[in-house]
Amino acid sequence: MTVAEMLSINRDRLSQSLRALAEVGKLPNGGVRRLAFSPEDLQARQLVQAWMQEAGMTVRIDAAGNVIGTYEGMHPGRAIATGSHIDTVAVGGRYDGTLGVLAGLEVVRTLQAQNIRLNHDFEVIVFSDEESSMIGSKGMSGTAKPDSEYYRRPDGTSIQDCLAQVGGNWEQLATAQRSREDMAAFLELHVEQGGLLEASGKQVGVVEGIVSLNRYGITVIGRPNHAGTTPMTMRKDALVAASHLVLAVEDLAKNTPGQQVATVGMLTVSPNATNIVPGQVDLSLDIRDLSQSHVDGLVEQLRQKIEAIATLTGTTLTMTPTLRVEPTLAAPVIFQTISQVCVDLGLTALEMPSRAGHDAQEIGRFTDMGMIFVPSSGGISHAEDEYTSPEQCEQGTNVLLQTLLRLDQHLS
Amino acid sequence: MTVAEMLSINRDRLSQSLRALAEVGKLPNGGVRRLAFSPEDLQARQLVQAWMQEAGMTVRIDAAGNVIGTYEGMHPGRAIATGSHIDTVAVGGRYDGTLGVLAGLEVVRTLQAQNIRLNHDFEVIVFSDEESSMIGSKGMSGTAKPDSEYYRRPDGTSIQDCLAQVGGNWEQLATAQRSREDMAAFLELHVEQGGLLEASGKQVGVVEGIVSLNRYGITVIGRPNHAGTTPMTMRKDALVAASHLVLAVEDLAKNTPGQQVATVGMLTVSPNATNIVPGQVDLSLDIRDLSQSHVDGLVEQLRQKIEAIATLTGTTLTMTPTLRVEPTLAAPVIFQTISQVCVDLGLTALEMPSRAGHDAQEIGRFTDMGMIFVPSSGGISHAEDEYTSPEQCEQGTNVLLQTLLRLDQHLS
Repeated sequence: MTVAEMLSINRDRLSQSLRALAEVGKLPNGGVRRLAFSPEDLQARQLVQAWMQEAGMTVRIDAAGNVIGTYEGMHPGRAIATGSHIDTVAVGGRYDGTLGVLAGLEVVRTLQAQNIRLNHDFEVIVFSDEESSMIGSKGMSGTAKPDSEYYRRPDGTSIQDCLAQVGGNWEQLATAQRSREDMAAFLELHVEQGGLLEASGKQVGVVEGIVSLNRYGITVIGRPNHAGTTPMTMRKDALVAASHLVLAVEDLAKNTPGQQVATVGMLTVSPNATNIVPGQVDLSLDIRDLSQSHVDGLVEQLRQKIEAIATLTGTTLTMTPTLRVEPTLAAPVIFQTISQVCVDLGLTALEMPSRAGHDAQEIGRFTDMGMIFVPSSGGISHAEDEYTSPEQCEQGTNVLLQTLLRLDQHLS
Repeated sequence: MTVAEMLSINRDRLSQSLRALAEVGKLPNGGVRRLAFSPEDLQARQLVQAWMQEAGMTVRIDAAGNVIGTYEGMHPGRAIATGSHIDTVAVGGRYDGTLGVLAGLEVVRTLQAQNIRLNHDFEVIVFSDEESSMIGSKGMSGTAKPDSEYYRRPDGTSIQDCLAQVGGNWEQLATAQRSREDMAAFLELHVEQGGLLEASGKQVGVVEGIVSLNRYGITVIGRPNHAGTTPMTMRKDALVAASHLVLAVEDLAKNTPGQQVATVGMLTVSPNATNIVPGQVDLSLDIRDLSQSHVDGLVEQLRQKIEAIATLTGTTLTMTPTLRVEPTLAAPVIFQTISQVCVDLGLTALEMPSRAGHDAQEIGRFTDMGMIFVPSSGGISHAEDEYTSPEQCEQGTNVLLQTLLRLDQHLS
């Protein structure tokens, strides 16, 4: 074994960093609130920047507000990068995003302690606002929308002000864009946020890709009517039609071969009164799968079911796409490297899709990416009791370290 | 033919009264807003009282705020009564309720013009607040709840203040109670508020009874979860369970022999977010039929379906009764009299249940009642474009008049 092959990260140091960062925006029951661009988010970014500098990295902020720490390599030029986010949802956990950033930092600390320099520059990136706009990773991949109004926050704050506050610059957003030429590969370690890995009994998830995210708004128009005086046969009940649709979505997702998921999560009835036959229902549809063409096929089948439901119930249904985020597959070379590292470290691994979105989804649009998952206890995430054990964090971070070392050898 | 048999009401005079009352609380598009106990309601009550006095009636207000005009008979004692309400929903029509009151007044005007005295006292009653609390008819039947808080209005006004304002008295409510001994029969003419009569092509509806009104609140508890990371097989989707339930309700009401109607009119999803599997759904169930035991049988069948849905979906469903208004059947003697009057007047008649509630439902709890329906154009009610033609109003009022004359002869 080479020195590099014998290298492993310091679990206690990693745990200590996780604990220290969890103090910023700490909630009463063990969780964290660090909404993007809030005072807590700014404080956490400052803390991570200080840690990066202590670990011998140079730090810059790009126009998208991303914090980029660089651990200079022997042949500077093309970088290998890792990273994730430290902003959270309103009531979030300590690991979602944060683990990926602090694992990158821990890898640098480990290299620095052994005085190891890589061939490539190694970047650790804190992406801006993953939980909402994903402006950080979208700015870097050049997929952000040009309309700043699209990014106005619910509290009314403009994206211009948000980015200025963290050292970014909306007007210069294009300068944040990166390419395969200056970033050879991107790795992201993340907690799974689901229960599959834990249920499988495996230690590490090797991510095949990040599923596409397809959202539709569906409106059902029936005829509002008196619930007493309107005979059953004379009704055009929008909720009856919507119920047929909810069951058709579930049936399609459950009984079509594949790993797709489909959800009607939002549904509102009008006028929504006990004694009035529903006249209108608005609902949302969310479909995810690794294959966009598979999703498109399911949507086509659903359109046929929708026609049948309209005929059956005497209602009108319209389906409008509201969001389409293309899937991003892991680069085979990185996927295979992660798998082999798991074998060599004696860790059991599960090959799996990521059904949640991540910064790697955007970065994978312009360069090779790979993701490593560690289990979330009980599949819980976006909640105060999100938990991944110190040992599981250590295992994932060691996979990140060893994958980095191998890519550094093999990539040009 | 006797003089009485040749008698008919004055269509123009009736139409003029309908037009005059429609000026009070008039809305821009032909409708009326006279919320109970509002200044408009008070003004309308004053106007009707003045008209009653002009028609030779004595007027009193009972403790429930009902306006009772009495056209004295030759053998005072037991009265025959008619009436309805003049309060409206927030955006109501000109005929709902109002027609029944003004038809009663028109009958008295017709009798007075011919100097005809009946054997019985004839009462025309304006019931208080039919559209919301039904405190008028409930006060008269003794079925009002003793808890005054139950009757507090959405704007915070107490029932004490409301009744005091119209000359009633909450503390003395029991004095408004009537019995079979002092009211031999009750008739109510009303617009159908549905489209059955118009669709049948018949001129008059002879009401078999007023259906029971049964309401339940149903809560479905599932498990909220990430719509991306939760595989279809690991979900407990409360909206999927609720959709099964909506379709079970529709199937039961549509495919069980009978004239029952059942409606899920209100449904709310929690947390109601595009990317979260629904964790809870609350919905309302409204079932109506002339036979309470038939309704109870349907509810029992639904309980069995609910158990099956809970098992199928891994959710918990609870069903709680929130309202149960027993059906009121028309008294056979009155029902038959109305039918015969229609034949004799050359009017085509449809025997039908009333699937909307009316004051007659309460009055029928202590004395014999019968109801006469006239068509609502397009089945529209509780809307500004509610319409019943002058000729249809005339036909219904003549049926009311002739039915009254016959009951006056036959009843003791």
